[in-house]
Amino acid sequence: MTLDVLIESAKNVYSEIKDLLGTSEGASKISLGAGGDISRKIDIVAETAVLNTIKSNNMSPVIIGEECGIVNLNKTSSSSLSNNNNGFVIMDAVDGTTNAIRGIPFSCCSLAFASEFKLSFVTDAVVLDLFTGDIYSASKQKGSFLNNKKINVRNEKDFSSITSLEDLKSIDVLIGTNVSGVPLNILDEISRVISFSSHIRHFGANALELCYFARGFIDAYIDIRGKIRSTDMAAAYLIAKEAGGKLYSPNGHELDSELGLKKTLSFYAVSNKRLFDLIKSYG
Amino acid sequence: MTLDVLIESAKNVYSEIKDLLGTSEGASKISLGAGGDISRKIDIVAETAVLNTIKSNNMSPVIIGEECGIVNLNKTSSSSLSNNNNGFVIMDAVDGTTNAIRGIPFSCCSLAFASEFKLSFVTDAVVLDLFTGDIYSASKQKGSFLNNKKINVRNEKDFSSITSLEDLKSIDVLIGTNVSGVPLNILDEISRVISFSSHIRHFGANALELCYFARGFIDAYIDIRGKIRSTDMAAAYLIAKEAGGKLYSPNGHELDSELGLKKTLSFYAVSNKRLFDLIKSYG
Repeated sequence: MTLDVLIESAKNVYSEIKDLLGTSEGASKISLGAGGDISRKIDIVAETAVLNTIKSNNMSPVIIGEECGIVNLNKTSSSSLSNNNNGFVIMDAVDGTTNAIRGIPFSCCSLAFASEFKLSFVTDAVVLDLFTGDIYSASKQKGSFLNNKKINVRNEKDFSSITSLEDLKSIDVLIGTNVSGVPLNILDEISRVISFSSHIRHFGANALELCYFARGFIDAYIDIRGKIRSTDMAAAYLIAKEAGGKLYSPNGHELDSELGLKKTLSFYAVSNKRLFDLIKSYG
Repeated sequence: MTLDVLIESAKNVYSEIKDLLGTSEGASKISLGAGGDISRKIDIVAETAVLNTIKSNNMSPVIIGEECGIVNLNKTSSSSLSNNNNGFVIMDAVDGTTNAIRGIPFSCCSLAFASEFKLSFVTDAVVLDLFTGDIYSASKQKGSFLNNKKINVRNEKDFSSITSLEDLKSIDVLIGTNVSGVPLNILDEISRVISFSSHIRHFGANALELCYFARGFIDAYIDIRGKIRSTDMAAAYLIAKEAGGKLYSPNGHELDSELGLKKTLSFYAVSNKRLFDLIKSYG
């Protein structure tokens, strides 16, 4: 049921904002309320579509979004972030806003449901490609899907046969990495991975890039800038994991985190633990 | 006339290879002739479509492509690379082959006509997006077009008001750069640009990335690895220039080069000279 509502919400975002993609109207900045922050119209319209869809389905979770902040629809209980029976909807209603407002066809709507306020408690997830309408979805322990067809990370290569990053060239590995505004010392940490890989990509919307990873388009996705909010990757986290991906923190532990708009992360998503070990050994 | 033939050729590539995108059949490797090099099926099919289209139009240029090498259709004269009355067609029939065979929707067909064997003598150019069918085209001194609509580089920012790379963040500049397999010393040269820019992109097909630059999606495109063949960017070179873009060599001269499959380049494509000066001052 929850997944259906997330999908319905994402579809409503798609239909509400598709005429705003690549337009100055969509990019226009508006101020919300007295002394409110400045937001892009496209972001406001998208979040409103999600809020309205959830309300119309008589769900009453706590909703967390960049523009709306924390909205508690659970009026009847003394719910809090640490204790809310109706769960949490975590939205990045438009991920890749810079692409979306320029019209660059790589942007998505990211929606997740979590039973507790932690990444590992995300149970349902949807990422909708706002330019193609493709729907990536996952429910915990039920696998990941693209338009209802099962997807898996790419794992055909025998990573065990390679012993150094230099070998990456020979097995044609494709690595996505977010280096936008990366601090110089962090760039230095991944410089050897970049240099030893024949194919580096960065498309500009983290959640959709993780879905590209989940469907096997890219073999790894790395963002160790410490800038990605846990809320922005909540949906793609589950989709990547349910597709067989491994997500690690820089310290080598499985990725997990409190949710929340101010909680930021660094992570390595890899199709194979061996790839993570190799990357780290050269970091 | 020449531009029409290039467009017809690109459209034929599109229809011939679209069912091969993202398939193992398209990725399959075949050997051409006795002792021939190994090529991907998708590349062979694409080049064959171009060769056939040009022949059927009774043109007899010298054709240059990665798979076919140098094919001289001008049988009646003692033409050579330095002296050929019928001109040169330079093709990268599938640019972004790695994306194309994985199904990542960013790949193109790049075709240029040059009256002499030099980048600056390219007179007509077509880049066709193999996933959307979008056609970018240009003829010398006649402007650049996307599906017959005029395009221009993005130049709305007052770059003269910024005095350091740190200011790039405030004006929301989006910079594309190819760092796949970049040597460490070259990565070091552009590390400050990467670090000071809020938005870095790399989609994985140089010719189409330059067209994104030409239509104003990105503000600059940098590839200083010295790996891009002049033949691979011949078409996008003209499209970027005719859209108002400036292309520079690392030494600050306007980009030019002999053509040829072994001739490789480094370049900065910028919407504004000021941006080049800033980037170089921090290199």
